[in-house]
Amino acid sequence: MAEQQQWVYLFTEGDPTNKQLLGGKGAGLAAMAQAELPVPPGFTITTEACREYYRLNRTFPEGMWSQTQQALSTVEATLHRHFGDVDTPLLVSVRSGAPLSMPGMMDTVLNLGLNDETVEGLARMTDNRRFALDAYRRFISMFSSIVLGIDREKFSNILERFVSQTPDQDESQLSITQLEDLIEAYKNLIFAELHGKTLPQDPYEQLRMAIAAVFDSWMGKRAVNYRRIYRIPDSLGTAVNIQAMVFGNLDWESGTGVAFTRNPATGEKELYGEFLLNAQGEDIVAGIRTPEPISMLETKLPDVYAQLKEVADRLEHFYKDVQDVEFTIEHRKLWLLQTRSAKRTGKAAIRIAVDMVDEEILTPTEAILRVEPQHIEQLLHPTIDPSVKATPIATGLPASPGAAAGKIVFNADEAERLAQEGEDVVLVRPETSPDDFHGMVAARAIVTARGGMTSHAAVVARGMGKPCVVGASDLRIEEGNNLLLVNGLELKRGEWLTVDGSSGNIYAGKLPTIPPQYDAYFHRFMRWADDVRTMGIRANADTPQDAQTARSFGAEGIGLCRTEHMFFGEDRLPLVREMIMAPDRGARHSALEKLLPMQRDDFYQLFKVMDGYPVTIRLLDPPLHEFLPSYEELLQSQAELKFALQKAQSIKEIDETLNQLVEQQLLLRQTERLREANPMLGHRGCRLSITYPEIAEMQSRAIFEAACKAVSEGITVIPEIMIPLVAFPEELRILTDIIHQTAKAVFAEQQITVDYSVGTMIELPRACLVADQIANIAEFFSFGTNDLTQTTLGMSRDDSARFLPNYIEHGILPEDPFRVLDAQGVGQLLQIAVDKGRSTRQDLKIGICGEHGGEPHSIHFCYSLGFDYVSCSPYRIPVARLAAAQAALQAKKNKAA
Amino acid sequence: MAEQQQWVYLFTEGDPTNKQLLGGKGAGLAAMAQAELPVPPGFTITTEACREYYRLNRTFPEGMWSQTQQALSTVEATLHRHFGDVDTPLLVSVRSGAPLSMPGMMDTVLNLGLNDETVEGLARMTDNRRFALDAYRRFISMFSSIVLGIDREKFSNILERFVSQTPDQDESQLSITQLEDLIEAYKNLIFAELHGKTLPQDPYEQLRMAIAAVFDSWMGKRAVNYRRIYRIPDSLGTAVNIQAMVFGNLDWESGTGVAFTRNPATGEKELYGEFLLNAQGEDIVAGIRTPEPISMLETKLPDVYAQLKEVADRLEHFYKDVQDVEFTIEHRKLWLLQTRSAKRTGKAAIRIAVDMVDEEILTPTEAILRVEPQHIEQLLHPTIDPSVKATPIATGLPASPGAAAGKIVFNADEAERLAQEGEDVVLVRPETSPDDFHGMVAARAIVTARGGMTSHAAVVARGMGKPCVVGASDLRIEEGNNLLLVNGLELKRGEWLTVDGSSGNIYAGKLPTIPPQYDAYFHRFMRWADDVRTMGIRANADTPQDAQTARSFGAEGIGLCRTEHMFFGEDRLPLVREMIMAPDRGARHSALEKLLPMQRDDFYQLFKVMDGYPVTIRLLDPPLHEFLPSYEELLQSQAELKFALQKAQSIKEIDETLNQLVEQQLLLRQTERLREANPMLGHRGCRLSITYPEIAEMQSRAIFEAACKAVSEGITVIPEIMIPLVAFPEELRILTDIIHQTAKAVFAEQQITVDYSVGTMIELPRACLVADQIANIAEFFSFGTNDLTQTTLGMSRDDSARFLPNYIEHGILPEDPFRVLDAQGVGQLLQIAVDKGRSTRQDLKIGICGEHGGEPHSIHFCYSLGFDYVSCSPYRIPVARLAAAQAALQAKKNKAA
Repeated sequence: MAEQQQWVYLFTEGDPTNKQLLGGKGAGLAAMAQAELPVPPGFTITTEACREYYRLNRTFPEGMWSQTQQALSTVEATLHRHFGDVDTPLLVSVRSGAPLSMPGMMDTVLNLGLNDETVEGLARMTDNRRFALDAYRRFISMFSSIVLGIDREKFSNILERFVSQTPDQDESQLSITQLEDLIEAYKNLIFAELHGKTLPQDPYEQLRMAIAAVFDSWMGKRAVNYRRIYRIPDSLGTAVNIQAMVFGNLDWESGTGVAFTRNPATGEKELYGEFLLNAQGEDIVAGIRTPEPISMLETKLPDVYAQLKEVADRLEHFYKDVQDVEFTIEHRKLWLLQTRSAKRTGKAAIRIAVDMVDEEILTPTEAILRVEPQHIEQLLHPTIDPSVKATPIATGLPASPGAAAGKIVFNADEAERLAQEGEDVVLVRPETSPDDFHGMVAARAIVTARGGMTSHAAVVARGMGKPCVVGASDLRIEEGNNLLLVNGLELKRGEWLTVDGSSGNIYAGKLPTIPPQYDAYFHRFMRWADDVRTMGIRANADTPQDAQTARSFGAEGIGLCRTEHMFFGEDRLPLVREMIMAPDRGARHSALEKLLPMQRDDFYQLFKVMDGYPVTIRLLDPPLHEFLPSYEELLQSQAELKFALQKAQSIKEIDETLNQLVEQQLLLRQTERLREANPMLGHRGCRLSITYPEIAEMQSRAIFEAACKAVSEGITVIPEIMIPLVAFPEELRILTDIIHQTAKAVFAEQQITVDYSVGTMIELPRACLVADQIANIAEFFSFGTNDLTQTTLGMSRDDSARFLPNYIEHGILPEDPFRVLDAQGVGQLLQIAVDKGRSTRQDLKIGICGEHGGEPHSIHFCYSLGFDYVSCSPYRIPVARLAAAQAALQAKKNKAA
Repeated sequence: MAEQQQWVYLFTEGDPTNKQLLGGKGAGLAAMAQAELPVPPGFTITTEACREYYRLNRTFPEGMWSQTQQALSTVEATLHRHFGDVDTPLLVSVRSGAPLSMPGMMDTVLNLGLNDETVEGLARMTDNRRFALDAYRRFISMFSSIVLGIDREKFSNILERFVSQTPDQDESQLSITQLEDLIEAYKNLIFAELHGKTLPQDPYEQLRMAIAAVFDSWMGKRAVNYRRIYRIPDSLGTAVNIQAMVFGNLDWESGTGVAFTRNPATGEKELYGEFLLNAQGEDIVAGIRTPEPISMLETKLPDVYAQLKEVADRLEHFYKDVQDVEFTIEHRKLWLLQTRSAKRTGKAAIRIAVDMVDEEILTPTEAILRVEPQHIEQLLHPTIDPSVKATPIATGLPASPGAAAGKIVFNADEAERLAQEGEDVVLVRPETSPDDFHGMVAARAIVTARGGMTSHAAVVARGMGKPCVVGASDLRIEEGNNLLLVNGLELKRGEWLTVDGSSGNIYAGKLPTIPPQYDAYFHRFMRWADDVRTMGIRANADTPQDAQTARSFGAEGIGLCRTEHMFFGEDRLPLVREMIMAPDRGARHSALEKLLPMQRDDFYQLFKVMDGYPVTIRLLDPPLHEFLPSYEELLQSQAELKFALQKAQSIKEIDETLNQLVEQQLLLRQTERLREANPMLGHRGCRLSITYPEIAEMQSRAIFEAACKAVSEGITVIPEIMIPLVAFPEELRILTDIIHQTAKAVFAEQQITVDYSVGTMIELPRACLVADQIANIAEFFSFGTNDLTQTTLGMSRDDSARFLPNYIEHGILPEDPFRVLDAQGVGQLLQIAVDKGRSTRQDLKIGICGEHGGEPHSIHFCYSLGFDYVSCSPYRIPVARLAAAQAALQAKKNKAA
């Protein structure tokens, strides 16, 4: 018998690291028990036993049952209660626990050990017959449905009938008599369903059956399906945890509660939570009695409070994290029912991490891994006051985080005017175009009815760190009537709207918001992150203001300055249009000449702000028609003008209308000429400068003249000129030649030489595939993963809203690939490009400047490929700093393992 | 001295296979000389000598000069003329000749050996002082500019002055006195330029200098640049060929001419060409005297004609190809100046290849390699009669080959009406849309002002094998006025237009065309090709008519049936629109129900025509808005209706207009909803059926019901269902499940089971990258290289016309990547997909159905990757059959080598 296999482990003896054997829950309970935390005693039947159970055609392996009985008697001895005893009945819970978490997929039986006799013992022990009967009727229905296989609904129907007779149709109002009748009715049901058999009264029989039922649930339909989806092998098996039940409703020195070891909202080191005396956990949930704040426990049961404080401390040292604890007090004795890492606000996460370092619970390195990137993000934007309850009137895509309220306006000019008068406004548009830019600047928040996560509105708003919700398709905007119609609601211009760009929710009215706060904790924490991270963090910033923001958030350079955003300025757009409309090279040249001093000043200001840091400037990228009014608008206005012509009364009116018509027609013709079927794949990026080299010439001249001016004032400039949308090495060679020639000319004129580099944006599959040839010319690569995702997946960001949600829902795609980099697909091209690029040029600098550069999973992926830096919008820089630090730590950990 | 290296080889002694040593030209001359073809004698100074020349800092290697003199004396002895001799002067040409062809990159000196004395000897020998002086003045300017380095322009300027004094400003009118004066003027120029030095009179000195000049030209700027572009190593060096000059103007038993060894237009075995007696080659070019047909030579100099016939025969056996020969007769002796493979028509190419097999000059295998794929293409389409000289009024892109003439019409309805009346019409449109389909069917040819090689017009026209020119941007179409304006010309509706879709040319008026001919030669030749090719050839065919054509051209299956083309039929479009406009699933279903019998019949007819051959059917692919009117048109018509409403006079008129307006608005709203920023990357392909599974259900049901019906009639059907635009394996799994379920249901209903397979079109980069996962599900891959090229290059076919020509011109791209597969870029993805796909499924069937499937270079590439078949438009099938045969032969050859 000495050689018999051990199938059962007390919580105090199992190996807490052996999840494979004990299951996740069993290992956790073993860990707590062995850390001498006050968990109710119990034991685990191993996964091995489960596997053996199946091997033996669903019979218990030899020795398992006797070991179970033996473990149970240890539990009895510990608690001085006895299983099946009518005076001090020991009740247990029977729970599944697989090596991998399968939440809700398998079965649990509570209050096992109750029968017609022990229920009376429980009544006496708790001095609460109603409680005992209630526990019994719950046990009966639970056991019957899970173990005996009777349809759960049949019990519900009976219960429903009794509940309907209570004053408020409330379970908790069932009287003792009603409960007695209910139990009787349940028993009759079982008798009928089992053809004369009854609920087993022998607690050991109950236990045996419950264990078998948990084993059986491993091969239940739900569990098998779940495992198929998550690719968990059937061979693992589940453990069974049997644990004593404790009661908070024994007397007024018992109770139940929930406690956070620190304040989860602020991070302050204080017990936080609530409790109820003489109550069970579900009483808190039911909300019949109002729980008291945890601080009151100190007054009422000071020794229990002391136990809780001590346990909280031990928990935090044990788990090295703030805990969210469910506890029960039974006769002044504290029992932990469950503990888990506490959810917390961003502010709390950082303060706790920093405090725990000071308390030597964590090292700074561990602290970095304790804070999630989204905590940081939360911290950086205003949020709607969580104490306010409000129902959104519509929900769109969360395009740019943060919350703000303002008065509704329907066009950019009005937004600007009202903002100048000191009003807070929210700009509501069907979608935005460059023409709306000044209105977006003026607004507190932006809402569009159309467009995706990378529509114009979304990109511009993120750049400005302004709350924005796009694609809120429930909105109907009647611009002419100054009306916003939302699901039957009618909002007029000037009414208040609150926009939560973090959730995509839109609320009628003005909700209070909480401003972001960066305190000393934040700065200390971020410094630790910076200490361990190895990847550089740069910002996508187009203006000196953006650059300033980026610097203040810790950017170590600009990874993407989109020069076209400079072209959209109100003073620039007419000149850009002049250039586009130019009938020949000369006219184009002269328009560009006028743009030159403006661009030069843009760059000069940028260099000034980024003194000592690299500034990556991308040459003009978008197709030229983006700078013209939309074709449809022009068609429309032409039709209107023709109509006006018909109705014109005077010669003067006719003349004026005719003049307008002619002008419009010119614009229309050019727009028509430039219109593209697929602008994303059209005449843009470096293709523009191949066709019109004078654009590249003007832009590089502006860069070099600005650089010279800055240098002459003692500023350190590190310009990196980036050529977009390269597919062929020769494109890069031609434009690099132009840039070098321009540099040479400017340096000669200015008698100053500035170090600079020329590289390319890798954003087309072909560029990845010929990266070895491209790296012959390019001094750096910056991955434009937005466009690379579009081309690799053949999926337009703007158009994917019609099917992408459906795709994610169907699990065809795990995530929005425009938010989280598609590592399996696009990632392969990145890998190819990095390998090939560095095969030609070992020290090739590699970065990313797509939206993914600020997304933690994608940052981890970039790190794994050996990127030198990531670049993201200024407001995501702290997120990226943390993610980069975590990536470095994770890699170190993996290497060590 | 015996050990001295050999730097010089007589044509009769060099190794003709050693191009590396003798250069291309030298090896060619050696081959001809050693085949005892009558080439003027001469010798080659080796590339080794050139390399040594540079190693020795531009001095001749030891022994080279003495070997040169010795070889020259052998030439003197052969011809009985003497270098520098005043009575029988031997003149030579000095030409470069590198191992790789570098046309025009290096220098040549003719008539070397002339000086003030030998020129008189030449005059006496030719009895033509004018000729001798003319040769001398040419020699002086050539030698001076090339060898002495005097600016060529200075000689041109002097010549210009003399020419201006002739009656017709014509060089050939210079009198003897003028020539003497010109030579004097040249000498003065040299004297001035060289500061008192003169043109060397010693022929040996001339020769020495000329050889050095040819060596020097190897490192000249032109040659170095050329080598840089074509990656030819500088280390190769050039050979120098020195060859005796012969004179066709010695007397009336001398002459010059050009002869084809067979008729290059028809392929008939007869000498073909023309000659002039007592003349030099340039006299034929100058066109002063009219040459006589070669047959006249038999009468005038029968022995020379016999020599020519014999030489022609020897040439053909030697080169195994028909030759285009330049010859000179000097005193009844025939000399070959040059011979090369003759350009020929497609008809001739095939006849010659077949005849040469019968004459045992070629094996069938060799014959296959002698015909170019474009020869076949030429043969398959009508061509404009080459005897007619006409100037095009405009040129566009050659979208679909062949020539046709017809009366101009500006809309599809009129095209149809006139065609029904028996008129030949050419449909002229700004661009075509599915609405124009019936007009395209009716027209002889199609012309559009906009669009690229794969615009709607181009694709549809190629499918129909109809001449089409697209993107003819000089055309201004005033549809309202029924006018076509082209570069100042005004053509009215009903006027004749001739369209050459092979060249892209458009001509006013009706030009005669020659119909295509498939004769016995063609069929014999194609059978040989089929015997050696290993890749299957399928057709892209959407209708039974297309399929019939494809079969008649030798298709072995349908590789792509685009089901959407069936949806564009006039009876279908309203139903398709009904489906698109359906407000819910039920309505959509009922519209699809109505389409089902039509689709079923489509497929049944296809299966019937393709009895025994596989038919690959692609599920619906294009975005749904393609089936709706264009958004702009709707906007326009709405504006017009509103205008009409204003002017309406009666209640009835108002009511009618209002009704129209409402209907239009509904259409407009749906069009607006479906409109996409980048339709190419939008809601299309398998994404449609993921969103609307009922489309895939209907289509697969139609396929299986049709298959069952066909099988029940004894037809052998091999359906291959193809799912387009897959990026994620899960897309394929979902749709494959639907297809299998539908198949099961239909087979059960029909009590018939049909073998079928389900595969996918690989047309996105991501699909290539995860091809291993995709091949788990797909039973075949068919590469859609049109879309794959668009996404890999980030280049829209429709929009690339604005920059692509510029790109090809700049050498950024060697070819239009939509015509010739971009092997370097897109090709890598193909390679990855093939490797990964076959790693999962060894017997994966792989084909291509993009436009590249009919393009010879691309076919070679597909062969190299191990494709099972290529699929192309019916009219390209013979081209593909030949290209596939050549690819197989080429691979065998490469393997052997």
